[in-house]
Amino acid sequence: MDEKINYIIGMRPVMEAVMAGKKIDKVFLKSGMGGDLFAELVALLREHNIAFQFVPVQRLEKISRGRHQGVIAQLSSIDYVPLEEAVENAFKSGDAPVFVLLDGISDVRNLGAIARSAECAKASAIVVPARGGALVTPDSVKASAGALVRMNISKVSNLKEAIYYLKDAGFKVVAATEKGDEMIYNVDFRGATAIVMGSEGKGISPAVLALCDVRCRIPMLGEIGSLNVSVATSIVLFEAVRQRILA
Amino acid sequence: MDEKINYIIGMRPVMEAVMAGKKIDKVFLKSGMGGDLFAELVALLREHNIAFQFVPVQRLEKISRGRHQGVIAQLSSIDYVPLEEAVENAFKSGDAPVFVLLDGISDVRNLGAIARSAECAKASAIVVPARGGALVTPDSVKASAGALVRMNISKVSNLKEAIYYLKDAGFKVVAATEKGDEMIYNVDFRGATAIVMGSEGKGISPAVLALCDVRCRIPMLGEIGSLNVSVATSIVLFEAVRQRILA
Repeated sequence: MDEKINYIIGMRPVMEAVMAGKKIDKVFLKSGMGGDLFAELVALLREHNIAFQFVPVQRLEKISRGRHQGVIAQLSSIDYVPLEEAVENAFKSGDAPVFVLLDGISDVRNLGAIARSAECAKASAIVVPARGGALVTPDSVKASAGALVRMNISKVSNLKEAIYYLKDAGFKVVAATEKGDEMIYNVDFRGATAIVMGSEGKGISPAVLALCDVRCRIPMLGEIGSLNVSVATSIVLFEAVRQRILA
Repeated sequence: MDEKINYIIGMRPVMEAVMAGKKIDKVFLKSGMGGDLFAELVALLREHNIAFQFVPVQRLEKISRGRHQGVIAQLSSIDYVPLEEAVENAFKSGDAPVFVLLDGISDVRNLGAIARSAECAKASAIVVPARGGALVTPDSVKASAGALVRMNISKVSNLKEAIYYLKDAGFKVVAATEKGDEMIYNVDFRGATAIVMGSEGKGISPAVLALCDVRCRIPMLGEIGSLNVSVATSIVLFEAVRQRILA
Protein backbone atom coordinates (compact mmCIF):
# COMPACT_ATOMS: atom_id res chain seq x y z
CA MET A 1 0.00 0.00 0.00
CA ASP A 2 1.39 3.35 -1.00
CA GLU A 3 1.56 5.32 2.24
CA LYS A 4 1.66 8.68 0.52
CA ILE A 5 -1.92 8.28 -0.67
CA ASN A 6 -4.42 9.96 1.63
CA TYR A 7 -7.57 8.21 2.79
CA ILE A 8 -10.80 9.02 4.54
CA ILE A 9 -11.94 6.17 6.72
CA GLY A 10 -15.41 5.18 7.93
CA MET A 11 -18.99 5.36 6.68
CA ARG A 12 -20.01 8.79 7.98
CA PRO A 13 -16.68 10.56 7.33
CA VAL A 14 -16.73 9.34 3.69
CA MET A 15 -20.34 10.49 3.21
CA GLU A 16 -19.48 13.89 4.65
CA ALA A 17 -16.40 14.16 2.45
CA VAL A 18 -18.47 13.39 -0.65
CA MET A 19 -21.08 15.97 0.27
CA ALA A 20 -18.38 18.54 1.02
CA GLY A 21 -17.05 18.08 -2.52
CA LYS A 22 -13.68 16.52 -1.50
CA LYS A 23 -11.73 15.17 -4.48
CA ILE A 24 -12.08 11.41 -4.22
CA ASP A 25 -10.58 8.93 -6.67
CA LYS A 26 -12.32 5.80 -5.52
CA VAL A 27 -14.17 4.31 -2.56
CA PHE A 28 -13.40 0.82 -1.30
CA LEU A 29 -16.37 -1.03 0.16
CA LYS A 30 -16.26 -4.27 2.12
CA SER A 31 -17.72 -7.18 0.15
CA GLY A 32 -21.16 -8.19 1.39
CA MET A 33 -22.06 -4.83 2.94
CA GLY A 34 -25.73 -3.92 3.20
CA GLY A 35 -28.24 -1.92 5.21
CA ASP A 36 -29.97 1.44 4.88
CA LEU A 37 -26.99 3.69 5.54
CA PHE A 38 -24.93 1.67 3.08
CA ALA A 39 -27.60 2.03 0.38
CA GLU A 40 -27.58 5.77 1.06
CA LEU A 41 -23.81 5.88 0.63
CA VAL A 42 -23.93 4.00 -2.68
CA ALA A 43 -26.66 6.33 -3.97
CA LEU A 44 -24.54 9.31 -2.96
CA LEU A 45 -21.48 7.93 -4.76
CA ARG A 46 -23.52 7.30 -7.90
CA GLU A 47 -24.98 10.78 -7.72
CA HIS A 48 -21.50 12.34 -7.46
CA ASN A 49 -20.13 9.99 -10.07
CA ILE A 50 -17.45 8.56 -7.80
CA ALA A 51 -16.06 5.12 -8.59
CA PHE A 52 -16.46 2.42 -5.94
CA GLN A 53 -15.22 -1.09 -5.67
CA PHE A 54 -16.10 -4.04 -3.43
CA VAL A 55 -13.01 -5.58 -1.86
CA PRO A 56 -12.25 -8.28 0.71
CA VAL A 57 -12.00 -6.96 4.26
CA GLN A 58 -8.25 -7.69 4.22
CA ARG A 59 -7.75 -4.94 1.65
CA LEU A 60 -9.40 -2.43 3.95
CA GLU A 61 -7.41 -3.66 6.92
CA LYS A 62 -4.21 -3.13 5.00
CA ILE A 63 -5.08 0.57 4.73
CA SER A 64 -6.50 1.01 8.21
CA ARG A 65 -5.89 -1.29 11.13
CA GLY A 66 -8.54 0.55 13.14
CA ARG A 67 -12.30 0.74 12.66
CA HIS A 68 -13.10 1.35 9.02
CA GLN A 69 -16.77 0.26 9.10
CA GLY A 70 -16.24 -1.29 5.68
CA VAL A 71 -15.73 2.04 3.90
CA ILE A 72 -12.51 3.78 2.87
CA ALA A 73 -12.20 6.62 0.35
CA GLN A 74 -8.97 7.26 -1.52
CA LEU A 75 -8.32 10.95 -2.09
CA SER A 76 -7.07 12.36 -5.37
CA SER A 77 -3.44 13.40 -5.77
CA ILE A 78 -4.45 16.24 -8.08
CA ASP A 79 -7.44 18.40 -8.91
CA TYR A 80 -8.97 16.97 -12.04
CA VAL A 81 -10.27 19.54 -14.49
CA PRO A 82 -13.74 19.07 -16.03
CA LEU A 83 -13.48 18.23 -19.72
CA GLU A 84 -15.40 21.35 -20.72
CA GLU A 85 -12.93 23.50 -18.82
CA ALA A 86 -9.93 21.66 -20.30
CA VAL A 87 -11.27 22.30 -23.80
CA GLU A 88 -11.86 25.96 -23.03
CA ASN A 89 -8.37 26.34 -21.56
CA ALA A 90 -6.85 24.61 -24.57
CA PHE A 91 -8.48 26.84 -27.16
CA LYS A 92 -7.54 29.92 -25.13
CA SER A 93 -3.84 29.11 -25.60
CA GLY A 94 -4.11 29.89 -29.30
CA ASP A 95 -2.54 26.70 -30.71
CA ALA A 96 -4.71 23.94 -32.09
CA PRO A 97 -5.02 21.67 -29.05
CA VAL A 98 -3.91 18.07 -28.72
CA PHE A 99 -5.72 15.90 -26.18
CA VAL A 100 -4.66 12.39 -25.18
CA LEU A 101 -7.47 9.98 -24.29
CA LEU A 102 -6.47 6.83 -22.45
CA ASP A 103 -8.80 3.88 -22.77
CA GLY A 104 -7.99 1.49 -19.94
CA ILE A 105 -4.30 2.17 -19.30
CA SER A 106 -3.95 0.49 -15.92
CA ASP A 107 -0.29 0.99 -15.02
CA VAL A 108 0.23 4.20 -13.03
CA ARG A 109 3.83 4.46 -14.28
CA ASN A 110 2.65 4.31 -17.88
CA LEU A 111 0.17 7.07 -17.10
CA GLY A 112 3.01 9.11 -15.64
CA ALA A 113 5.33 8.44 -18.58
CA ILE A 114 2.59 9.42 -21.03
CA ALA A 115 1.98 12.67 -19.15
CA ARG A 116 5.70 13.49 -19.22
CA SER A 117 5.87 13.08 -23.00
CA ALA A 118 2.58 14.90 -23.46
CA GLU A 119 3.88 17.90 -21.55
CA CYS A 120 7.08 17.90 -23.62
CA ALA A 121 4.98 17.80 -26.81
CA LYS A 122 2.78 20.62 -25.45
CA ALA A 123 -0.38 18.55 -25.47
CA SER A 124 -3.18 20.38 -23.70
CA ALA A 125 -4.85 17.69 -21.63
CA ILE A 126 -5.05 14.03 -20.75
CA VAL A 127 -8.46 12.42 -20.42
CA VAL A 128 -8.90 9.28 -18.34
CA PRO A 129 -12.03 7.33 -17.49
CA ALA A 130 -13.14 7.43 -13.85
CA ARG A 131 -13.38 3.62 -13.86
CA GLY A 132 -11.28 0.94 -15.46
CA GLY A 133 -8.03 2.84 -15.77
CA ALA A 134 -5.13 4.20 -13.76
CA LEU A 135 -5.82 7.41 -11.89
CA VAL A 136 -3.30 9.94 -10.72
CA THR A 137 -1.42 8.61 -7.69
CA PRO A 138 1.79 9.88 -6.08
CA ASP A 139 3.68 7.17 -8.02
CA SER A 140 2.28 8.32 -11.34
CA VAL A 141 3.09 11.95 -10.51
CA LYS A 142 6.67 10.89 -9.80
CA ALA A 143 6.90 8.93 -13.07
CA SER A 144 5.57 11.99 -14.90
CA ALA A 145 8.43 14.23 -13.71
CA GLY A 146 5.71 16.52 -12.40
CA ALA A 147 3.79 16.75 -15.68
CA LEU A 148 0.62 15.41 -14.08
CA VAL A 149 0.41 18.41 -11.75
CA ARG A 150 1.18 20.89 -14.55
CA MET A 151 -1.26 19.67 -17.19
CA ASN A 152 -5.03 19.60 -17.32
CA ILE A 153 -6.12 16.08 -16.44
CA SER A 154 -9.79 15.30 -16.96
CA LYS A 155 -11.49 12.33 -15.37
CA VAL A 156 -14.67 11.49 -17.24
CA SER A 157 -17.42 9.06 -16.37
CA ASN A 158 -17.62 7.83 -19.91
CA LEU A 159 -14.96 7.99 -22.61
CA LYS A 160 -17.52 7.70 -25.39
CA GLU A 161 -19.37 10.78 -24.16
CA ALA A 162 -16.05 12.60 -23.95
CA ILE A 163 -15.39 11.74 -27.60
CA TYR A 164 -18.81 13.06 -28.65
CA TYR A 165 -18.09 16.24 -26.73
CA LEU A 166 -14.68 16.69 -28.33
CA LYS A 167 -16.05 16.04 -31.81
CA ASP A 168 -18.69 18.69 -31.23
CA ALA A 169 -15.91 21.05 -30.17
CA GLY A 170 -14.19 20.50 -33.50
CA PHE A 171 -11.61 17.86 -32.62
CA LYS A 172 -10.53 15.17 -35.03
CA VAL A 173 -10.47 11.93 -33.05
CA VAL A 174 -7.53 9.72 -34.02
CA ALA A 175 -7.18 6.18 -32.71
CA ALA A 176 -3.67 4.75 -32.65
CA THR A 177 -4.04 1.03 -33.04
CA GLU A 178 -2.05 -1.83 -34.50
CA LYS A 179 -5.01 -2.46 -36.79
CA GLY A 180 -4.98 1.10 -38.16
CA ASP A 181 -5.65 1.59 -41.86
CA GLU A 182 -3.06 4.26 -42.44
CA MET A 183 0.31 5.13 -41.08
CA ILE A 184 0.57 7.99 -38.61
CA TYR A 185 2.60 9.95 -41.20
CA ASN A 186 -0.44 10.16 -43.45
CA VAL A 187 -2.71 11.60 -40.78
CA ASP A 188 -2.98 15.37 -40.50
CA PHE A 189 -2.35 16.26 -36.85
CA ARG A 190 -2.21 20.03 -37.35
CA GLY A 191 -5.78 20.83 -36.32
CA ALA A 192 -7.43 20.20 -32.97
CA THR A 193 -6.77 16.52 -32.36
CA ALA A 194 -7.76 13.93 -29.76
CA ILE A 195 -5.38 10.97 -29.79
CA VAL A 196 -6.93 7.79 -28.37
CA MET A 197 -4.63 5.11 -26.96
CA GLY A 198 -5.70 1.69 -25.68
CA SER A 199 -4.39 -0.54 -22.93
CA GLU A 200 -1.36 -2.73 -23.50
CA GLY A 201 -3.35 -5.91 -23.21
CA LYS A 202 -6.65 -5.20 -24.89
CA GLY A 203 -6.09 -2.12 -27.04
CA ILE A 204 -8.89 0.35 -27.60
CA SER A 205 -12.34 -1.03 -26.78
CA PRO A 206 -14.53 -1.63 -29.89
CA ALA A 207 -17.20 0.86 -28.79
CA VAL A 208 -14.62 3.63 -28.44
CA LEU A 209 -12.81 2.66 -31.63
CA ALA A 210 -16.07 2.86 -33.56
CA LEU A 211 -16.37 6.56 -32.68
CA CYS A 212 -12.91 7.55 -33.90
CA ASP A 213 -12.57 9.51 -37.15
CA VAL A 214 -9.27 7.93 -38.14
CA ARG A 215 -7.50 4.72 -37.16
CA CYS A 216 -3.79 4.90 -37.69
CA ARG A 217 -0.80 2.75 -36.86
CA ILE A 218 2.86 3.13 -36.15
CA PRO A 219 4.73 0.95 -38.68
CA MET A 220 6.11 -2.13 -36.94
CA LEU A 221 9.20 -3.50 -38.68
CA GLY A 222 10.38 -6.18 -36.25
CA GLU A 223 9.10 -9.49 -34.96
CA ILE A 224 7.76 -8.36 -31.59
CA GLY A 225 5.29 -6.02 -33.26
CA SER A 226 4.21 -4.04 -30.23
CA LEU A 227 5.61 -1.03 -28.44
CA ASN A 228 5.20 -0.07 -24.83
CA VAL A 229 2.06 2.09 -24.66
CA SER A 230 3.87 5.13 -23.29
CA VAL A 231 6.42 4.87 -26.11
CA ALA A 232 3.68 4.46 -28.72
CA THR A 233 1.84 7.50 -27.36
CA SER A 234 5.06 9.52 -27.44
CA ILE A 235 5.76 8.59 -31.06
CA VAL A 236 2.29 9.71 -32.12
CA LEU A 237 2.57 12.93 -30.07
CA PHE A 238 5.90 13.80 -31.65
CA GLU A 239 4.61 13.06 -35.12
CA ALA A 240 2.09 15.81 -34.33
CA VAL A 241 4.95 18.03 -33.14
CA ARG A 242 6.89 17.35 -36.36
CA GLN A 243 3.93 18.25 -38.56
CA ARG A 244 3.23 21.41 -36.61
CA ILE A 245 6.86 22.57 -36.60
CA LEU A 246 7.41 21.90 -40.27
CA ALA A 247 3.99 23.23 -41.29
CA MET B 1 19.26 -9.36 -5.05
CA ASP B 2 17.76 -10.71 -8.21
CA GLU B 3 17.72 -14.46 -7.71
CA LYS B 4 17.37 -15.22 -11.39
CA ILE B 5 20.89 -13.95 -12.06
CA ASN B 6 23.45 -16.73 -12.04
CA TYR B 7 26.74 -16.45 -10.18
CA ILE B 8 30.04 -18.26 -9.92
CA ILE B 9 31.41 -18.10 -6.41
CA GLY B 10 34.99 -18.33 -5.13
CA MET B 11 38.49 -17.41 -6.33
CA ARG B 12 39.43 -20.59 -8.22
CA PRO B 13 35.98 -21.27 -9.76
CA VAL B 14 35.89 -17.71 -11.13
CA MET B 15 39.41 -17.99 -12.60
CA GLU B 16 38.49 -21.28 -14.22
CA ALA B 17 35.27 -19.81 -15.60
CA VAL B 18 37.18 -16.91 -17.13
CA MET B 19 39.73 -19.23 -18.72
CA ALA B 20 36.95 -21.49 -20.01
CA GLY B 21 35.43 -18.49 -21.80
CA LYS B 22 32.22 -18.34 -19.72
CA LYS B 23 30.17 -15.23 -20.44
CA ILE B 24 30.68 -13.01 -17.40
CA ASP B 25 29.13 -9.58 -16.96
CA LYS B 26 31.08 -8.44 -13.93
CA VAL B 27 33.18 -9.73 -11.05
CA PHE B 28 32.64 -8.48 -7.52
CA LEU B 29 35.78 -8.37 -5.37
CA LYS B 30 35.91 -7.82 -1.64
CA SER B 31 37.37 -4.42 -0.75
CA GLY B 32 40.91 -4.66 0.56
CA MET B 33 41.76 -7.98 -1.10
CA GLY B 34 45.42 -8.70 -1.90
CA GLY B 35 47.93 -11.50 -2.37
CA ASP B 36 49.50 -13.33 -5.29
CA LEU B 37 46.46 -15.31 -6.38
CA PHE B 38 44.38 -12.17 -6.23
CA ALA B 39 46.86 -10.29 -8.42
CA GLU B 40 46.71 -13.18 -10.86
CA LEU B 41 42.91 -12.99 -10.94
CA VAL B 42 42.92 -9.24 -11.61
CA ALA B 43 45.48 -9.69 -14.41
CA LEU B 44 43.28 -12.40 -15.90
CA LEU B 45 40.17 -10.20 -15.75
CA ARG B 46 42.07 -7.34 -17.42
CA GLU B 47 43.37 -9.66 -20.10
CA HIS B 48 39.85 -10.91 -20.87
CA ASN B 49 38.42 -7.42 -20.62
CA ILE B 50 35.95 -8.34 -17.89
CA ALA B 51 34.64 -5.57 -15.65
CA PHE B 52 35.33 -5.88 -11.93
CA GLN B 53 34.27 -3.86 -8.96
CA PHE B 54 35.40 -3.68 -5.34
CA VAL B 55 32.48 -3.97 -2.95
CA PRO B 56 31.98 -4.24 0.82
CA VAL B 57 31.90 -7.81 2.08
CA GLN B 58 28.19 -7.39 2.89
CA ARG B 59 27.42 -7.16 -0.82
CA LEU B 60 29.10 -10.52 -1.41
CA GLU B 61 27.33 -12.05 1.58
CA LYS B 62 24.01 -10.97 0.17
CA ILE B 63 24.72 -13.12 -2.90
CA SER B 64 26.31 -16.05 -1.12
CA ARG B 65 25.98 -16.85 2.55
CA GLY B 66 28.66 -19.52 2.24
CA ARG B 67 32.39 -19.19 1.52
CA HIS B 68 32.93 -16.78 -1.33
CA GLN B 69 36.64 -16.05 -0.73
CA GLY B 70 35.98 -12.44 -1.66
CA VAL B 71 35.23 -13.23 -5.31
CA ILE B 72 31.86 -13.60 -7.07
CA ALA B 73 31.28 -13.48 -10.84
CA GLN B 74 27.91 -12.51 -12.28
CA LEU B 75 27.08 -14.45 -15.42
CA SER B 76 25.59 -12.83 -18.51
CA SER B 77 21.92 -13.28 -19.34
CA ILE B 78 22.68 -13.29 -23.05
CA ASP B 79 25.53 -13.94 -25.44
CA TYR B 80 26.94 -10.59 -26.43
CA VAL B 81 27.99 -10.31 -30.06
CA PRO B 82 31.38 -8.74 -30.91
CA LEU B 83 30.91 -5.36 -32.59
CA GLU B 84 32.67 -6.52 -35.76
CA GLU B 85 30.25 -9.42 -36.05
CA ALA B 86 27.23 -7.20 -35.37
CA VAL B 87 28.32 -4.88 -38.18
CA GLU B 88 28.83 -7.79 -40.55
CA ASN B 89 25.42 -9.26 -39.68
CA ALA B 90 23.78 -5.88 -40.15
CA PHE B 91 25.18 -5.26 -43.62
CA LYS B 92 24.27 -8.82 -44.64
CA SER B 93 20.58 -8.06 -44.07
CA GLY B 94 20.58 -5.69 -47.05
CA ASP B 95 19.03 -2.62 -45.37
CA ALA B 96 21.21 0.28 -44.27
CA PRO B 97 21.78 -0.62 -40.61
CA VAL B 98 20.81 1.41 -37.56
CA PHE B 99 22.84 0.88 -34.40
CA VAL B 100 21.96 2.32 -31.00
CA LEU B 101 24.90 3.25 -28.76
CA LEU B 102 24.11 3.82 -25.09
CA ASP B 103 26.51 6.02 -23.17
CA GLY B 104 25.96 5.36 -19.50
CA ILE B 105 22.30 4.32 -19.37
CA SER B 106 22.23 2.78 -15.90
CA ASP B 107 18.62 1.67 -15.46
CA VAL B 108 18.12 -1.92 -16.64
CA ARG B 109 14.45 -1.25 -17.39
CA ASN B 110 15.39 1.65 -19.65
CA LEU B 111 17.84 -0.65 -21.43
CA GLY B 112 15.02 -3.16 -21.90
CA ALA B 113 12.55 -0.53 -23.10
CA ILE B 114 15.09 0.81 -25.60
CA ALA B 115 15.71 -2.70 -26.94
CA ARG B 116 11.98 -3.28 -27.37
CA SER B 117 11.58 -0.12 -29.44
CA ALA B 118 14.79 -0.82 -31.37
CA GLU B 119 13.50 -4.25 -32.36
CA CYS B 120 10.17 -2.74 -33.47
CA ALA B 121 12.09 -0.18 -35.56
CA LYS B 122 14.26 -2.95 -37.01
CA ALA B 123 17.48 -1.51 -35.64
CA SER B 124 20.33 -3.96 -36.10
CA ALA B 125 22.20 -3.78 -32.82
CA ILE B 126 22.57 -2.12 -29.46
CA VAL B 127 26.05 -1.25 -28.24
CA VAL B 128 26.72 -0.85 -24.52
CA PRO B 129 29.96 -0.16 -22.69
CA ALA B 130 31.30 -3.01 -20.53
CA ARG B 131 31.64 -0.57 -17.63
CA GLY B 132 29.55 2.34 -16.45
CA GLY B 133 26.22 1.28 -17.86
CA ALA B 134 23.41 -1.22 -17.45
CA LEU B 135 24.12 -4.69 -18.79
CA VAL B 136 21.59 -7.29 -19.82
CA THR B 137 19.95 -8.82 -16.74
CA PRO B 138 16.81 -10.95 -16.48
CA ASP B 139 14.89 -7.79 -15.51
CA SER B 140 16.05 -5.94 -18.60
CA VAL B 141 15.18 -8.91 -20.81
CA LYS B 142 11.68 -8.87 -19.31
CA ALA B 143 11.31 -5.11 -19.86
CA SER B 144 12.43 -5.63 -23.48
CA ALA B 145 9.57 -8.05 -24.22
CA GLY B 146 12.30 -10.45 -25.34
CA ALA B 147 14.00 -8.02 -27.74
CA LEU B 148 17.31 -8.30 -25.90
CA VAL B 149 17.56 -12.00 -26.74
CA ARG B 150 16.53 -11.46 -30.39
CA MET B 151 18.83 -8.58 -31.29
CA ASN B 152 22.59 -8.32 -31.56
CA ILE B 153 23.85 -6.72 -28.35
CA SER B 154 27.50 -5.72 -28.34
CA LYS B 155 29.41 -5.01 -25.14
CA VAL B 156 32.48 -2.93 -25.90
CA SER B 157 35.36 -1.99 -23.65
CA ASN B 158 35.35 1.55 -24.98
CA LEU B 159 32.54 3.44 -26.64
CA LYS B 160 34.92 5.84 -28.37
CA GLU B 161 36.76 2.99 -30.08
CA ALA B 162 33.40 1.56 -31.11
CA ILE B 163 32.54 4.89 -32.74
CA TYR B 164 35.84 4.97 -34.64
CA TYR B 165 35.14 1.45 -35.83
CA LEU B 166 31.61 2.29 -36.95
CA LYS B 167 32.78 5.42 -38.75
CA ASP B 168 35.35 3.35 -40.60
CA ALA B 169 32.59 0.96 -41.56
CA GLY B 170 30.69 3.83 -43.14
CA PHE B 171 28.25 4.74 -40.38
CA LYS B 172 27.10 8.29 -39.77
CA VAL B 173 27.26 8.84 -36.01
CA VAL B 174 24.34 10.91 -34.75
CA ALA B 175 24.19 12.17 -31.16
CA ALA B 176 20.73 12.90 -29.79
CA THR B 177 21.19 15.60 -27.19
CA GLU B 178 19.19 18.49 -25.79
CA LYS B 179 22.02 20.75 -26.96
CA GLY B 180 21.81 19.51 -30.55
CA ASP B 181 22.20 22.07 -33.34
CA GLU B 182 19.51 20.74 -35.59
CA MET B 183 16.20 19.03 -35.17
CA ILE B 184 16.02 15.30 -35.79
CA TYR B 185 13.76 15.98 -38.80
CA ASN B 186 16.63 17.68 -40.59
CA VAL B 187 19.04 14.77 -40.16
CA ASP B 188 19.20 12.16 -42.91
CA PHE B 189 18.79 8.76 -41.23
CA ARG B 190 18.50 6.75 -44.43
CA GLY B 191 22.09 5.56 -44.63
CA ALA B 192 23.98 3.40 -42.13
CA THR B 193 23.47 5.26 -38.86
CA ALA B 194 24.70 4.96 -35.29
CA ILE B 195 22.42 6.79 -32.87
CA VAL B 196 24.15 7.78 -29.63
CA MET B 197 22.04 8.32 -26.52
CA GLY B 198 23.31 9.57 -23.15
CA SER B 199 22.25 8.84 -19.60
CA GLU B 200 19.24 10.58 -18.09
CA GLY B 201 21.34 12.44 -15.57
CA LYS B 202 24.52 13.38 -17.41
CA GLY B 203 23.72 13.06 -21.10
CA ILE B 204 26.40 11.99 -23.54
CA SER B 205 29.94 12.35 -22.20
CA PRO B 206 31.94 15.17 -23.85
CA ALA B 207 34.61 12.81 -25.25
CA VAL B 208 31.97 10.69 -26.98
CA LEU B 209 29.99 13.73 -28.14
CA ALA B 210 33.11 15.19 -29.75
CA LEU B 211 33.35 12.16 -32.05
CA CYS B 212 29.79 12.36 -33.35
CA ASP B 213 29.17 13.60 -36.90
CA VAL B 214 25.87 15.28 -36.09
CA ARG B 215 24.25 16.52 -32.89
CA CYS B 216 20.51 16.70 -33.11
CA ARG B 217 17.66 17.34 -30.73
CA ILE B 218 14.04 16.44 -30.33
CA PRO B 219 12.08 19.71 -30.13
CA MET B 220 10.90 20.31 -26.58
CA LEU B 221 7.75 22.40 -26.41
CA GLY B 222 6.81 22.22 -22.74
CA GLU B 223 8.26 23.39 -19.46
CA ILE B 224 9.78 20.10 -18.27
CA GLY B 225 12.07 20.00 -21.28
CA SER B 226 13.27 16.43 -20.98
CA LEU B 227 11.91 13.10 -22.06
CA ASN B 228 12.54 9.72 -20.53
CA VAL B 229 15.61 8.30 -22.29
CA SER B 230 13.80 5.25 -23.65
CA VAL B 231 11.08 7.50 -25.06
CA ALA B 232 13.66 9.85 -26.60
CA THR B 233 15.49 6.91 -28.19
CA SER B 234 12.21 5.59 -29.58
CA ILE B 235 11.30 8.94 -31.12
CA VAL B 236 14.67 9.15 -32.89
CA LEU B 237 14.43 5.53 -34.04
CA PHE B 238 10.97 6.06 -35.49
CA GLU B 239 12.06 9.27 -37.22
CA ALA B 240 14.54 6.99 -38.99
CA VAL B 241 11.69 4.56 -39.77
CA ARG B 242 9.58 7.40 -41.15
CA GLN B 243 12.33 8.63 -43.45
CA ARG B 244 13.06 5.12 -44.69
CA ILE B 245 9.42 4.26 -45.33
CA LEU B 246 8.65 7.51 -47.12
CA ALA B 247 11.95 7.57 -49.02
